[in-house]
Formats: sequence, structure tokens, C-alpha cells
Amino acid sequence: MSINMEENKIVFIGAGNLATNLAKAFYDKHIKISQIYSRTEDSARSLAEAVKTDYTTTLEDVINDADIYIVSLKDDALIDLMPRIIAGKENALMAHTSGSLPLDIWPDSIKRKGVFYPLQTFSKQRIVDFRNIHTFIESNNSADYLLLEKLASSVTNEVSELSSEKRRQIHLAAVFACNFTNHMYALAEKLLKQYDMPFSYMLPLIEETEKKAHVLSPREAQTGPAVRYDEKVINKHLELLSNEPEMQEIYQLISKSIHKL
Amino acid sequence: MSINMEENKIVFIGAGNLATNLAKAFYDKHIKISQIYSRTEDSARSLAEAVKTDYTTTLEDVINDADIYIVSLKDDALIDLMPRIIAGKENALMAHTSGSLPLDIWPDSIKRKGVFYPLQTFSKQRIVDFRNIHTFIESNNSADYLLLEKLASSVTNEVSELSSEKRRQIHLAAVFACNFTNHMYALAEKLLKQYDMPFSYMLPLIEETEKKAHVLSPREAQTGPAVRYDEKVINKHLELLSNEPEMQEIYQLISKSIHKL
Repeated sequence: MSINMEENKIVFIGAGNLATNLAKAFYDKHIKISQIYSRTEDSARSLAEAVKTDYTTTLEDVINDADIYIVSLKDDALIDLMPRIIAGKENALMAHTSGSLPLDIWPDSIKRKGVFYPLQTFSKQRIVDFRNIHTFIESNNSADYLLLEKLASSVTNEVSELSSEKRRQIHLAAVFACNFTNHMYALAEKLLKQYDMPFSYMLPLIEETEKKAHVLSPREAQTGPAVRYDEKVINKHLELLSNEPEMQEIYQLISKSIHKL
Repeated sequence: MSINMEENKIVFIGAGNLATNLAKAFYDKHIKISQIYSRTEDSARSLAEAVKTDYTTTLEDVINDADIYIVSLKDDALIDLMPRIIAGKENALMAHTSGSLPLDIWPDSIKRKGVFYPLQTFSKQRIVDFRNIHTFIESNNSADYLLLEKLASSVTNEVSELSSEKRRQIHLAAVFACNFTNHMYALAEKLLKQYDMPFSYMLPLIEETEKKAHVLSPREAQTGPAVRYDEKVINKHLELLSNEPEMQEIYQLISKSIHKL
């Protein structure tokens, strides 16, 4: 089956971090985007300019004759705005980009349901290379699955089918691997600041920790006082954190969890 | 002041992960190592072979006429073995490599005290490039400070003086940035395994999280449900973790801490 992406009119509903990165990746591959919607004019305009298309800040002005709507809003907003998002678009393929919302968040009036979930942490300021980003696709029908797969394959080499249940679990794992990891960096930064030391001291260390995960299972790669349960060091650290009860609790809980695992 | 490292006889007491990486880095820069001690014959022999020198597994057989002893043992072992380590070496420079032990862990009978602390996570299986590793030096006298600085500069461009108090704090920060970060990877791995999914799904994500820390303060770089306090997602995640009370507790505690910071 050959699908020519140029025959498909694509609209982005949402112009946040993910939408911005994805729309720009499409644009770089000469996939035309017909319109951008965002409630926030700055976001809508700036993304529309970047991918040379029109924009609107009114949901009711989103064109109804597109073939694919990529809906990339916060979960709450997607649910709240659902009736206004889908009005008049019953024949189109509606695809959301959320890690935690199931495929059937789309109501039954929508016949062509889809999910297009690129697993990455996106910022507008940092445009990432899409080629290695795992993108997980789901649809309620095989024609649209193939369409989304084709669309994803135009920007990345890593496209897989994935159920809503597994996607939800991946999203949870990603919170640990990305957001919580970043918070460990932030806490380290805070500790260093207390002694006027720069976070840059940590950079070779966090780089090596990340690189190790490419070659060793994280469970096997673990080092440090917790894994060997070096109580002397652990107690000294807890004492150092005596003015930071929250960090002390985090230290204790994670150390226990490391030792157990 | 010019110091010729070739005039200084160096002995390694300890042949663990750090000692192995450091001794090999010295060897690559043609700095001769006169002897390796380790209680574990395999470790002693294998490092001695790698840096073409002799080894012993008996502390009493460590030569007494070296100029610098790099003592790289676990904190507990260093303290327990102290009398046997220093016996007969009162004129030498004794330098330990511990993040948490102070300079004055060396008793008063030792006149030339030193610390040589390279901040990195080391494994024997992965020989790291030393050039960018921050190495923190301390000594009770300026001549030996310069000697250690010269020694460190032979393998890395990042050498600084640092007090015992600040080093202890860096070590604590490193536990967060490295060991705890790695544990977040391990928990993500565990979650993925429950659904037969590979940890490799996370690799582009953890790579990008690490890269962001080079350009943005981790506190500012934070994304995800916790920082915007998206209670719907957070509650769904806590529900998903209902069979994992420990991970649930970690999730809750870190999310609160992210939101607060």
C-alpha cells in the first residue's frame, strides 16, 4: 500500500512543546501542514510562521476538511474541549499525542481514531532530532494505522504499534527516567549551590551515568553507598541533610529501594 | 616550580574501580606505578598486569620507599586498616581518594597528608576518558598540594583545590546526580519489564534529559505532570503503582518535591 502524504491535509490542534517539535520535523520532510490552532496567539503564530502556514486561536475556525488532525493538548484540555474539537470533523482521522490517554478517549461519533505518541521530552527552545525517537502508533482501523505509521516513518526510524495500556505504562516509566531523573539533577544543583559550587561539576558524572545505561542494565550498573549498604556513609549523608527534611526522606527512601532491588 | 613525575615513586593501595581507572590513566601518560596492593589477588594481578608493575596482597609487603601512596579503599577499610597502611611510611605523601573522608583522617604521625578525588562513577569494565573529569585536591602543605596538582594535571584538565567540607557536599550531590538517577532508570526498567518492553525505549529520552542539563539549569528544565501539578495524571500513575507501595511512595515524594522546588 502506498500512501502519498502530500494528498493528506494535516492540521495541528495545539502548538506546545511536542507539537512544535513534531510540526517542524514534518515541515523539514516537506510534509505540508494546513493550519495551526492554539489558544495562545504567540504560540500559534510562531509555529505557523516556522512551518509556513496559517493559524487560528479560535477552535471554531479550525478548518473542517483536513484529513488528519494531530491533537496535542494537555490531557485536561483535550477532555474539556472535546466537543468543540471534533465538531464537524466526523470524517477525519483524529490522532492525539498523549502518553496517558487511551485511544477510546475519542467518542464513538469519531470513526477514525488514532494515537501518535513520540516518546521524548520536548522544549520549544531545543529542537530535537526526530530520527531516533520511538514513536508509538495506535488506531481503531488498519488503514489509519498504516497512514499514521507512514506519517511517523517520514520523520523517525523507530515506529511501533502499541496498545493504550502499554503506552500508559511507558509514560509512567518515562516520568521516572526523565522527570524524576531531572529532579535528582535539580537536588544535586541545590546541594552544590549551598556551598557556592557550580552544577557543571556534575556534568561528566551524569553523562557517564547516562552512557552506562546504553551498555549495562541500570540495575546491574548501580554503584555508590546505597547498593553496598555502606551505613557509615549513608548516616553521614543523612546528617548532612538534617536541615532538609524532604531531601532526607528522599535520600532514605531511594537508598532503601536501591538496596532492595 | 617544576616537578618531574618520573622522580616520584607511586604506589596504589587498592585496585578497585577508581584505582583501576586512575592507574591506567597514569600509565597511558607514562607515569610509572611502582606497586599495586589489593587484598583480592585477581584485582591486584589484573591491574598490575595492565600497568606493567608488581603487586602484593599483603599490606606488610607494600614497599616503604615510595614517594606517593594513592590509597583507594572503601571508607571503612581505610579506617580499619589505617595502622597497617601507614606503618613505615611516615615520610611519604599519603593521599586518599574518598569523597566523604576528610583530609585529617590521616593521623598526626603522617606529616604529608593529601586527598586526590576524581569525581566520576567508575567501573572496571568501562575505562573512562579522564581528561574532563573534575579532580579535587587537598593537602596540608603547599609543596604536596602542588605535587598532587601536577599529578592530576597529567591526566585531566579540570583540577581544583577543595576543602574536605565542600568535597563531602559534592559527594552527597553526586549520590543524587549519579546513584539516584541510575535508580530512576532501574525503576523505569522494572516498569517496562512488567509489560515485556525493553529499557532501550528510554534511551533517547534519558540522553536528551542529560543533554538538556548542559544548557539549562535542571530546575528550569523540568517538564512532566509533577511540575505543572497535573493531578489527574499523577493520580492515575499512583493507581498504576498500587501493587508497588515502595515505588508509589517514591513517586509521591518526588512529585511533591518537584512541585515545591
